[in-house]
Amino acid sequence: MQPIISFVGHSNSGKTTLIEQIVRILSRKGYRVGVLKHTHGTIKADQRGTDTDRFRLAGAGISSITDDKLLVRFEDARKLTSKIIVSALSRELDLLIVEGYKKESFPKALFSDELSAVDIKGIIATIGKKTPPDGKVRHFSPLKPNEIARWLEQTFILPARQDRALQVLIDGKPLPMNPFVRKMIRETLAGMLKSLKGGRGRKTQILIDFSSKM
Amino acid sequence: MQPIISFVGHSNSGKTTLIEQIVRILSRKGYRVGVLKHTHGTIKADQRGTDTDRFRLAGAGISSITDDKLLVRFEDARKLTSKIIVSALSRELDLLIVEGYKKESFPKALFSDELSAVDIKGIIATIGKKTPPDGKVRHFSPLKPNEIARWLEQTFILPARQDRALQVLIDGKPLPMNPFVRKMIRETLAGMLKSLKGGRGRKTQILIDFSSKM
Repeated sequence: MQPIISFVGHSNSGKTTLIEQIVRILSRKGYRVGVLKHTHGTIKADQRGTDTDRFRLAGAGISSITDDKLLVRFEDARKLTSKIIVSALSRELDLLIVEGYKKESFPKALFSDELSAVDIKGIIATIGKKTPPDGKVRHFSPLKPNEIARWLEQTFILPARQDRALQVLIDGKPLPMNPFVRKMIRETLAGMLKSLKGGRGRKTQILIDFSSKM
Repeated sequence: MQPIISFVGHSNSGKTTLIEQIVRILSRKGYRVGVLKHTHGTIKADQRGTDTDRFRLAGAGISSITDDKLLVRFEDARKLTSKIIVSALSRELDLLIVEGYKKESFPKALFSDELSAVDIKGIIATIGKKTPPDGKVRHFSPLKPNEIARWLEQTFILPARQDRALQVLIDGKPLPMNPFVRKMIRETLAGMLKSLKGGRGRKTQILIDFSSKM
C-alpha cells in the first residue's frame, strides 16, 4: 500500500489550513510527511531570470539549488503522469498528502460541507462541520486535526512502513506479491547480500535496467 | 560510476553561461541532464507566504507543487549530506552538473584562468582561455561547449548507462561488485521476476528495508 491521501474540496474550504495542522502534528511525532499541491494555474517560475530558471529553460530535466538547509528542485513534468509523480514522492515519505487531483484514483478525504461525493471516486472519509446524512465512510470535524492525524497514522503510515520490508517496482509500478513470494525474494536477497563485502545495511536498493547491456 | 561533474570557478568566471550551453546541447541529443547549484547564501523562500511555504514551515519533509508541466519541490536538507543529495539526483539523470561544492570529492572541471588547482581535489579537466602551463589533465576552451559536451558524453553519460544494467545501493551508497557477481545477481533476479505475473519490464527497482518486519 502506498501512503497517499488526497484532500479534495473547494478553494476556501479550509484544506490548506487543515493540511498545515496535520503536517505539524505528524512531523512532531517524527514522521516524514510531504505535501503535493496540484494547481490548475501556472506556476510562476519563468520570469525571475535566476540561474535555476536559466538551466531549466535550457532543457534541464532537473534544475536545483541548495543552501545545505533547503533543496529546491524544478523538474520538467511534461512526460510524467500524476500517478508517477505521486508514487515517486510517496516513496520518499511516511505519508504524502495531496491537495487537488480530484479526478485521479488516489484515496480521498472530501470536504463535504460544500462538495458532494457525486462523480468523485475513492472517497474514504469526509471532513466537515455538518455530518453528511448518507455517511457511509468515516467523518471528521475540521476542528479536530489530532483525530484526523491519528486516523492517517493507523490507516496509512503504519501499514506502509510494514510494506517497506520489500517493495518491487516494475517500470515505476508496484508489483503485487503474495506473502510467500515476498518472503522468498527478501530472504534470497538477504543471503546473497550478506555474502558480499559491504552488503549489510538497513536500506537496500537494487536497480536494474534490463534494456542496458552489461 | 555515477554521472557527476562539478564545475568549479570564481563567480563571474562564466560557469553559469557555459553550463547553460552544455545543458542545451546534451538535452537536444536526448539526454536527461540536470544541474545542482550549491550556494553559500540563503535561498529566499521564507517570506512569500505561499501554500508550499506554509507546509514547509509546518515541518513537511517535502513540500511541492505541480501544474502538470513543472514540478517544484522544497525539501528539508538539514539531515542530508552533499554526497546523498548529489547521488540521489544523479540517479534520476543521465548527467548531473554540479556548480559549487569546491571542497567535496566529486570529479571537477576547473575554470583555470582565475583559480589554481592548489587545495582542490579531483580535478579531471580545466576550462579557460589560457592553457595552464603545467597541464596534466584535459583542457578546454570555454568558447567550445560542443567539445566539452562530447567529452562529458564519452566520460560520464555512456559509461553510466552501462552501469545501470545493475546497481546495488546499501543505505544510499553504491556497492562495488566484480563482473561475475553483477552478472549472477542480475540473472538470478531476472529469472525470479520472469516467473511472477507482471514481473517483466524494462526498469526494475527492488527496495528492501531490513529494519522493517514483514
